[in-house]
Amino acid sequence: MSKHNCLIAQSGGPTAVINSSLSGAISKALSSKDVGEIYGAINGIQGVIDDNVISLTQLFEKDPKSLETLKTTPAMFLGSCRYKLNNDRKALSSIFDCFKKYDIRYFFYIGGNDSMDTVAKLSQYAKEISFPIFINGIPKTIDNDLFGTHHTPGFGSAAKFVATSILDIAHDAYIYPFPSITIVEVMGRNAGWLTASTALARNKYNVSPDLIYLPEVPFSSFQFLKDIRHIQKNKQNVIVAVSEGLKEHGEYLGSKSPESDSFGHVQLSGAARYLEQLVHTAFNCKVRSVELNVLQRSAMHIASQRDLQEAFEIGSEAVNAALKGETGKMMIFKQGTDASYNMIIDTIPVEEVANREKLIPREWINDQGNDVTSTLIDYILPLIEGELTLSYENGLPNYMDISHLCSLG
Amino acid sequence: MSKHNCLIAQSGGPTAVINSSLSGAISKALSSKDVGEIYGAINGIQGVIDDNVISLTQLFEKDPKSLETLKTTPAMFLGSCRYKLNNDRKALSSIFDCFKKYDIRYFFYIGGNDSMDTVAKLSQYAKEISFPIFINGIPKTIDNDLFGTHHTPGFGSAAKFVATSILDIAHDAYIYPFPSITIVEVMGRNAGWLTASTALARNKYNVSPDLIYLPEVPFSSFQFLKDIRHIQKNKQNVIVAVSEGLKEHGEYLGSKSPESDSFGHVQLSGAARYLEQLVHTAFNCKVRSVELNVLQRSAMHIASQRDLQEAFEIGSEAVNAALKGETGKMMIFKQGTDASYNMIIDTIPVEEVANREKLIPREWINDQGNDVTSTLIDYILPLIEGELTLSYENGLPNYMDISHLCSLG
Repeated sequence: MSKHNCLIAQSGGPTAVINSSLSGAISKALSSKDVGEIYGAINGIQGVIDDNVISLTQLFEKDPKSLETLKTTPAMFLGSCRYKLNNDRKALSSIFDCFKKYDIRYFFYIGGNDSMDTVAKLSQYAKEISFPIFINGIPKTIDNDLFGTHHTPGFGSAAKFVATSILDIAHDAYIYPFPSITIVEVMGRNAGWLTASTALARNKYNVSPDLIYLPEVPFSSFQFLKDIRHIQKNKQNVIVAVSEGLKEHGEYLGSKSPESDSFGHVQLSGAARYLEQLVHTAFNCKVRSVELNVLQRSAMHIASQRDLQEAFEIGSEAVNAALKGETGKMMIFKQGTDASYNMIIDTIPVEEVANREKLIPREWINDQGNDVTSTLIDYILPLIEGELTLSYENGLPNYMDISHLCSLG
Repeated sequence: MSKHNCLIAQSGGPTAVINSSLSGAISKALSSKDVGEIYGAINGIQGVIDDNVISLTQLFEKDPKSLETLKTTPAMFLGSCRYKLNNDRKALSSIFDCFKKYDIRYFFYIGGNDSMDTVAKLSQYAKEISFPIFINGIPKTIDNDLFGTHHTPGFGSAAKFVATSILDIAHDAYIYPFPSITIVEVMGRNAGWLTASTALARNKYNVSPDLIYLPEVPFSSFQFLKDIRHIQKNKQNVIVAVSEGLKEHGEYLGSKSPESDSFGHVQLSGAARYLEQLVHTAFNCKVRSVELNVLQRSAMHIASQRDLQEAFEIGSEAVNAALKGETGKMMIFKQGTDASYNMIIDTIPVEEVANREKLIPREWINDQGNDVTSTLIDYILPLIEGELTLSYENGLPNYMDISHLCSLG
């Protein structure tokens, strides 16, 4: 069997462990006698279209330690794109020209829903034109909303950051002996998995977050204020977790206060900010809103060791699957037959995954729609387990050099 | 020499290492043959006035490991207050009644500027009424604005969180091949030390933050937009650090867009949010504002090991100083005569410290007022050094039980 080359690209929003999957794939490809050159496309499928390709073999072969540094570097070493591949023949033809030029036999796309749609279209097209290539998807998203897999790499680390932050915010909020309401906004437009992970901050002394509002349940401002009033009867410092994707009467909360600023620009405030004002008007006490913002998807220092390791392995297994001849698949985690947490890596036809969303089942949310059940907590708990030993230099994390992304495009 | 009791309280805003100072003080007091009972007042001087006092000896003597857990628990184990002690004889008399009741010979107040004012007033009053007590202050603040000390415990950990977050935000921002402007807001109303610490995120591949705006320099929106336009000529993804305390024409930036929302409530947006809108109007590109918010003062997982250890030692040394008969003092760090970083712990009369603010010297800021000099970077660098090994349980930091603060006050 002669050697064939491989190409890897990353797409969608960052997580702490996408580069761990990249590191796993490179690591496996480097050690395989069937893989020749390993290439990376810069900025996802856009880089394939534009022939913006770098050699990863050169970069990582000479310095094996750098694969470890890559593993613990947040966001995307190869950059990302927002390119949605329609059945645009020109783009498809550019992509396959690139595959031809670099003699690519294996293409791996690390991404979320949209990226899996790209994998589906490309593998379908390869079949149509009988192009000898194996195209597979490696899942990632902090939102955990990918269909067909037990959970998604990236979610566990984001959940660990979010739960830890809620605990830290609780320690911060409890110090004053007067009433306060803190509203914490968590990412996840349609799926509430990450907002639900705030529940893991509860322990023997901390019952916060006191209320959790998920996008899976239609939001009611009236009920929200009533819920807070109820909590305040027994607790001075109330902490509420809300998803950025909360909707009331079908509209995002933030879009409900379209006041123009002094520049005539419409302000779209986030859910927490909107609710901060609502609560401020209704309650005469200290109110604070906290947006966890991009740190929840890019903070490496509180990543989950299990998530990091699983991301590495699923990247590595993707190369194995391709070498075995699989194509048009997405890599998935499946719970083994044991009662305890035991993930088996498998594949699923990517058409079954693309353009679908896995939301929280209604029965994993309490009846009132303002908290999660213990089933949901038990599901998330193993995913945040373990801490990593990060390498530091001058007091800061020692990440991969990404100067190839910093220049003017 | 007979044994006398000691009382400790905490005040002001949280930092990651205030409890490390508390741990240091308790640890030293427990091991001293001259100290009897160790008490803690809940919610600062308010707890002394209200006789809300707990025994720390009982809590920590039986479980020495708990002193280690306390050391790595963020915010304030004893709670805080916002009480400003004026020369109110009734409050003073309640305080000294409490001292008498518990036979307090040593009182330690861990706090910032306002707390040092309380230390000054109490020690002065003790002298006036010839009350045998030694009253000393232990400094803490993320703002690093305390006078008379080389730096303040709590600043290094906050600076490490802030610098790390900027690096993570840079990794997050650089992934897309189109222009973006990210504005990060850092705490510090009058002193820009923490905002300045964003400069430490720069390394061999990352030049961000590209611009830094400190409250020590009057802000100009016109110059700000001009500065960004200049950076954009050579860089796609611009990252700007701004202090929450920026003022233009003497007014906080946030206070300049007092649009009423739909409830008739005036919106006071923060500096970053205000600037986000300003930039959004002026530039046709992706703009994001990030408020680091309370996490910068309460996240323990990325605390500075040096800061944590120094905070412990300054707490411990405060007990030593009191035992030697010092009173009306604040503990300080002084650079030794060596060229390299070498902190000596000493004391300073608290009157020299109270109600003063240490701002960044103008010569440590560049001429244009949009960046810091290398002198300032060199000053902060040693303070963020070292990482701690935190104890985790179920994937989350294992902190001290603070249920005594969680109840309804």
